Amino acid sequence: MFQLIAFDADDTLWHNENLFAHTQERFRRLLKPYQEPESINQKLFETEMRNLNYFGYGVKGFTLSMIETAIELTDGQISGNEIGEIIKFAKAMVKAPVEPLEGVAETLPALAESYPLAVITKGDLFHQEAKLARSGLGNFFRHVEIVSNKDGEVYRAILQKHHVSPENFLMVGNSPRSDISPILEIGGYAVHIPYRITWAHEAGNEDPIQSPRFFQLESIRQLPALLERLSATAG
Amino acid sequence: MFQLIAFDADDTLWHNENLFAHTQERFRRLLKPYQEPESINQKLFETEMRNLNYFGYGVKGFTLSMIETAIELTDGQISGNEIGEIIKFAKAMVKAPVEPLEGVAETLPALAESYPLAVITKGDLFHQEAKLARSGLGNFFRHVEIVSNKDGEVYRAILQKHHVSPENFLMVGNSPRSDISPILEIGGYAVHIPYRITWAHEAGNEDPIQSPRFFQLESIRQLPALLERLSATAG
Repeated sequence: MFQLIAFDADDTLWHNENLFAHTQERFRRLLKPYQEPESINQKLFETEMRNLNYFGYGVKGFTLSMIETAIELTDGQISGNEIGEIIKFAKAMVKAPVEPLEGVAETLPALAESYPLAVITKGDLFHQEAKLARSGLGNFFRHVEIVSNKDGEVYRAILQKHHVSPENFLMVGNSPRSDISPILEIGGYAVHIPYRITWAHEAGNEDPIQSPRFFQLESIRQLPALLERLSATAG
Repeated sequence: MFQLIAFDADDTLWHNENLFAHTQERFRRLLKPYQEPESINQKLFETEMRNLNYFGYGVKGFTLSMIETAIELTDGQISGNEIGEIIKFAKAMVKAPVEPLEGVAETLPALAESYPLAVITKGDLFHQEAKLARSGLGNFFRHVEIVSNKDGEVYRAILQKHHVSPENFLMVGNSPRSDISPILEIGGYAVHIPYRITWAHEAGNEDPIQSPRFFQLESIRQLPALLERLSATAG
């Protein structure tokens, strides 16, 4: 039934948002002498959104946004050395261990025997490649697509390149906005596995999704059973 | 004879290094109260090389390296507002107009009629895609490959993906290190068109390259004649 099953990477295959949350905690501590935690969070998010158009997704853009936020929130009073700390946060993020989510390392090998698997992720090309290599999961994927944004057009182009029709394609991910909505829009199947934290930007609207091609699971461990059920129905 | 002709992008299709040079000039002016121009250049290059391993290539990594350099060269004395200027440099670079090199806009359409053309470039995924879109040249290329690094293995993987043998592949670029040496190493053809400035990191060793599969041109305008000559010889 499925000619290609693709996985989002950050917070679907491995932990990611917790690293951003941890860094943001360090950032708040750094700015504590200047500002309340809540204004810091809000200002940082605003700066990130404004800067997406300049810097795209990923640690480097996030870091430049932290620096810009720090300067604005302190009216330029923040010191060079304090900004140096923010660059250290970035380096720690880039080199942080890549921890697969519970069940991923056990489930992927079995799936890879029955289906061609792909990773479709956005973010820094350099960093995503490094994380995939460090994750130890690279060999399970026939294709790796690192894209600058995930919308219907981008997914359609990837499927065309691999000669797969949307009705033979299943996407698995944690982000309603990037992994689910665009897939349903182009006629593919989508499995949502929520991560315990969702970056505000990635949350979809709050309406529950109604589609016969949409499924929600709690863990990747439940994916093989779902695929079996779908095959049985299709057969 | 050639089943695929690929072009590097920065300083091959459009001006790029001059934008980095211009930004570096603004950076030196910013640090003038603290340091001599020569120590600034040297320290920045050292920082960039050290940080490649963290941040890869592109404007965002370059910017983080400028900020780090500014902090180190001023012993942390640089102000938040001055660092804010460096972030403005980055935004100006990202949004700078993309200027095709002389001859590119005239030569590509003719080549695209006879050969499948590709772009193979490294750098920030997000930024390179934006530049290609803004260049107006996107339609001439059947494939666009944005990679995190250019070595023989990366080129080999691209050629395999497109079912092209190295002896049927020609790469055109300005960087001996990234566009020429790895191509000759895997058995492809390489055309070097030097740009008037070469980033120190991209310069090859100084030995002139000796290979029957290597050619040096002064302008992309000379490429059609070279291809004609090579076809005639092959025929």
